[in-house]
Amino acid sequence: MARRAVVLVSGGLDSATVLAIAAKAGFECLPICFDYGQRHRAELDACVQVCKNQLGCEPYVMRVDLSGLGGSALTDTDIAVPETPTAGIPITYVPARNTVFLSLALAFSEVHESRDIFIGVNAVDYSGYPDCRPEFIQAFQLLANVATRASVEADKDDSMVIHAPLLYWSKQRIIEEGIALGVDYSLTVSCYQAVADGRACGRCDSCRLRAQGFRDAGIADATRYILAKP
Amino acid sequence: MARRAVVLVSGGLDSATVLAIAAKAGFECLPICFDYGQRHRAELDACVQVCKNQLGCEPYVMRVDLSGLGGSALTDTDIAVPETPTAGIPITYVPARNTVFLSLALAFSEVHESRDIFIGVNAVDYSGYPDCRPEFIQAFQLLANVATRASVEADKDDSMVIHAPLLYWSKQRIIEEGIALGVDYSLTVSCYQAVADGRACGRCDSCRLRAQGFRDAGIADATRYILAKP
Repeated sequence: MARRAVVLVSGGLDSATVLAIAAKAGFECLPICFDYGQRHRAELDACVQVCKNQLGCEPYVMRVDLSGLGGSALTDTDIAVPETPTAGIPITYVPARNTVFLSLALAFSEVHESRDIFIGVNAVDYSGYPDCRPEFIQAFQLLANVATRASVEADKDDSMVIHAPLLYWSKQRIIEEGIALGVDYSLTVSCYQAVADGRACGRCDSCRLRAQGFRDAGIADATRYILAKP
Repeated sequence: MARRAVVLVSGGLDSATVLAIAAKAGFECLPICFDYGQRHRAELDACVQVCKNQLGCEPYVMRVDLSGLGGSALTDTDIAVPETPTAGIPITYVPARNTVFLSLALAFSEVHESRDIFIGVNAVDYSGYPDCRPEFIQAFQLLANVATRASVEADKDDSMVIHAPLLYWSKQRIIEEGIALGVDYSLTVSCYQAVADGRACGRCDSCRLRAQGFRDAGIADATRYILAKP
């Protein structure tokens, strides 16, 4: 029987690639996505399309309300998404988001007896978020191995692994590997302020990183934009 | 200005004591509780009463749906709460619950610029949950210090601290210290299957630990029971 892996999917380019990598590695993939009060729901729709396309199933959608906390342009529509690069950690950072998401993925993996969690964090072509760094992933893996029933009852060798295969890849390489695995990037939405039908602004940090990645890879970009292509 | 602390409150005896300890230590307390799809809402009502009584304010209620995951008697009403002691980790364990709660508390603390989180876990008179152990708290503190904006931007000395003052205390000592701090335990609900008005079953693991604690402390127990007192 294939080993089960919980895969965090966001509807974006990176996690679609991770899903393909996990499936290719032979895992039975359990995709999970989060309805957390994000600015737009186009990425949740994209999640469903990506999972249907790659696995023939829908993701488990978990609800957690981070919008009430405020403090981020991605959950508070009163804060504008920056359209030019900013110094430091940008206002699109959602406080402790990956900690919360990995915790919920850990709960899900515990219920479904999985010891493997895949997440599409990247510390190369990224927005500078603290919870996308290697030291964060390492620390979460250490936590996961003392946090669950299995950490008390199971064989010590049967430990939890947090897989972050994109951690050191450029956006170009992510796209190249994804294309080789048959990922249909036209289904994905990266834009921080996409409109309801998934069209992208072409100006936010996430759009810029995505467009540059396709340019560097020399691959046609199927992203649909609200206005002109960046 | 007083240092701010986020305090996890559950409506139970332990977290009511922790709230009093944090306030006594001089922290400006920001209480947070979780509407996570628990079996009964009496503990949420108790949270509000405890916070009003001790701080004169209501707790921030965060919604996260763990009931859809299943796997625990505390979130799935189809699974009975055991009324006799069981071997190993009991079915009342909610997968990764404290990991999820601390993660959300971390997000809340980040938004409110707190570096201190208080949680009422206890590894002496407890139900044997993996996420109540010292190694779990230590691992979460390490994670918290690489997970947030402050871990990148702030002074290295200004680190996050996860306070678990009850970790090595007996239930007797918790009650004695709480009484000395003026905690009104009649407002708290410990029972895993309390009815709507907060009356306790007197038979579950949590009721037994509570009743024994009051007996050991030689203090009258104001707990209201559905039937006869255990």
